[in-house]
Amino acid sequence: MKITINDLAILGGAPALTKPVTTGQYNLPDWEKVESMLLGIFRRQYYANHGPLVRQLDQRIAKYVGIKHAICVTNEVIGLMVLVKGMELSGEIILPASTPIETVEACMWAGLKPILCDIDPKTHTFQSDSIARLITSNTSAILGLHPRGKVIEPEILSKLAAEHQIKLIYDAASNIGCFHAEKHIGRFGQASVFSFHESGILNGAEGGCIVTDDDELADRLKTIRNFHPSETFADVPLRINGKMSEAQAGLALLSLEDIEANITENRKRYHAYSDGLKNIPGINLMKYSKQNKNDYSKIIIEVNQQTFGLNCDLLYNLLAFENIACLRPFYSGPYLNKKSKDGSSAFPNTKYLSQLLLQLPNNQHMKMGEVDSICNLIHSIYSLSGEYMEYTKNHGRENA
Amino acid sequence: MKITINDLAILGGAPALTKPVTTGQYNLPDWEKVESMLLGIFRRQYYANHGPLVRQLDQRIAKYVGIKHAICVTNEVIGLMVLVKGMELSGEIILPASTPIETVEACMWAGLKPILCDIDPKTHTFQSDSIARLITSNTSAILGLHPRGKVIEPEILSKLAAEHQIKLIYDAASNIGCFHAEKHIGRFGQASVFSFHESGILNGAEGGCIVTDDDELADRLKTIRNFHPSETFADVPLRINGKMSEAQAGLALLSLEDIEANITENRKRYHAYSDGLKNIPGINLMKYSKQNKNDYSKIIIEVNQQTFGLNCDLLYNLLAFENIACLRPFYSGPYLNKKSKDGSSAFPNTKYLSQLLLQLPNNQHMKMGEVDSICNLIHSIYSLSGEYMEYTKNHGRENA
Repeated sequence: MKITINDLAILGGAPALTKPVTTGQYNLPDWEKVESMLLGIFRRQYYANHGPLVRQLDQRIAKYVGIKHAICVTNEVIGLMVLVKGMELSGEIILPASTPIETVEACMWAGLKPILCDIDPKTHTFQSDSIARLITSNTSAILGLHPRGKVIEPEILSKLAAEHQIKLIYDAASNIGCFHAEKHIGRFGQASVFSFHESGILNGAEGGCIVTDDDELADRLKTIRNFHPSETFADVPLRINGKMSEAQAGLALLSLEDIEANITENRKRYHAYSDGLKNIPGINLMKYSKQNKNDYSKIIIEVNQQTFGLNCDLLYNLLAFENIACLRPFYSGPYLNKKSKDGSSAFPNTKYLSQLLLQLPNNQHMKMGEVDSICNLIHSIYSLSGEYMEYTKNHGRENA
Repeated sequence: MKITINDLAILGGAPALTKPVTTGQYNLPDWEKVESMLLGIFRRQYYANHGPLVRQLDQRIAKYVGIKHAICVTNEVIGLMVLVKGMELSGEIILPASTPIETVEACMWAGLKPILCDIDPKTHTFQSDSIARLITSNTSAILGLHPRGKVIEPEILSKLAAEHQIKLIYDAASNIGCFHAEKHIGRFGQASVFSFHESGILNGAEGGCIVTDDDELADRLKTIRNFHPSETFADVPLRINGKMSEAQAGLALLSLEDIEANITENRKRYHAYSDGLKNIPGINLMKYSKQNKNDYSKIIIEVNQQTFGLNCDLLYNLLAFENIACLRPFYSGPYLNKKSKDGSSAFPNTKYLSQLLLQLPNNQHMKMGEVDSICNLIHSIYSLSGEYMEYTKNHGRENA
């Protein structure tokens, strides 16, 4: 419990947690299962080149999503490049200004000009009316995001894309455990790309996959992901090495077996956060909709500086000193500081939200007590905020 | 021993080898070492994102090559894309027509127009005089290959590139164990990219690395390989997810420890092949130069149809039935069938060689007796070639 500002780690107090916690999920199967999986790879002497475990993962993911095809790849960025090339998109693609920089750049690698669209402060992604204003004769596609596993305006967006005869694809990120009502999140638009990065619910160490119901597109994607003759021989403009390794696939298969158990644990910690944070003025936990099945991996708070007493930057720094490593959503893009011709922010809502939001740690390796400690700490920081701001004013450490 | 053509597996005889052998090296460290390495990764909960093992591999490879910087990446194709983008090459790049298709396509992903150059029948790669004829004001670089780990015309090529103020880079493929005289093969040109695919001497399951002595270029490459803020922040046109995982790096580090032992075993099998094949008319084993330190991984024969009695295609097929899976060097490109304006082959030497060359199996898991069996089998096929051709003429199975 922090009683005075001198108890804060930034001013020399003992950190609230003895070991650092981070926002990544880092879900690990039992070592015995991992060992047996890896020994199988060694026995078969088959490590790369679309081996039996990758084939199995392609099928398991398709089944889990409830879609015809899953095409696993080495990582999500490469998956997006493969998808854009496979759909032969050209010209412009419209993306939310909150899109992670790597997704924007994947589109650029594949020859597209990204057109960013400011997001809505409520839904945290772009809305059909803003998108419609950006569609020109050069637009070939819209790329959507699902903030915290929530599908925004699915019917309206599909209709908009159909009307303009352009494609709708999704960067579904690590939301592989999420369903919109009864429908898996991967079943919207023409295709979606998922990440199996260690930070997400499904851990392939690194890895990703593209899902689609389009047979012809799937053939093309399977051809592009692998530069050498493999199972399909579609006519494609360019191929790449996007192969997922057997070890990645093996880990992802085991992680898929554990996905429900890991979601259950995430939900428990989400509810503990919800309870622990609910009485702190100026801290607003982003809620998960009960209609949807979600993975509860992302604990995101909005920090209201007026009420809480400190802004998000300061809270981020204070927590870092306490061994609590947070993330800043929507904070990655250099385009966040882009200006309009009149000198105002080109993406005012995105920039505004990037200054308010903080993602707190939630992972398999955390004890429930650590969640309580984090909530208590944030409460203490709230109580000490006036005193701390006074201190920094006198000591010139406002940005410490 | 095959006495009559009915002993050939293609006509129903028992295969010469009971278990299939392939050309890949598939070098594996001891399982105990692999297990301990993987448990370390699990303990650290650090699987991707340029972790401690990747950092260590960057340093070990640089030391092994004798160069300032090694930048490890998820695979060689992505490495080539990162390199081309990092050097900001544009316009045209000149490559040997024997370049694997994935290298040509990596250049295309990075926005370059590939200009292929026919190869020399003796050196198996392009020569400076043919290259010079293709250099225009649009040429920004030459990309060289090292056939079987041999550096061709190093001084002349460097001089040619310098004279035209263009860059010289190398697709050094899996030749990480090769030295040109005393100088490591990675130390030619401005930069080289290596593969750590399971098929090569150094097995990272999949993986690769870029090596260079250029400090500024290295900073840019480190920035591009990883889309999120990492160790360097150079100003680059585009970033990508080219991250090598910790498991890949861990396997590659162990494989690097074993590299000399694996080369020694390769050399033994190479000499056994050399002895076993030397008296077979029409079979010419490609020799390794004794001046250079080589990895002896590639056992490549030239099949002279006149003398041997069968062409390379037929020998390839007959061996496949005997459980001996060979490779056809220079055989991957669709451009191999490209025609000049006068209707003749655009790359006659490359096409000619692609019809003559066959790579035989050589790997850690082969017993020396299997090498002898393969040599004896090829000798038997030579002896039976007349009878077999007669048979196929009568039975319409010339292309069986």
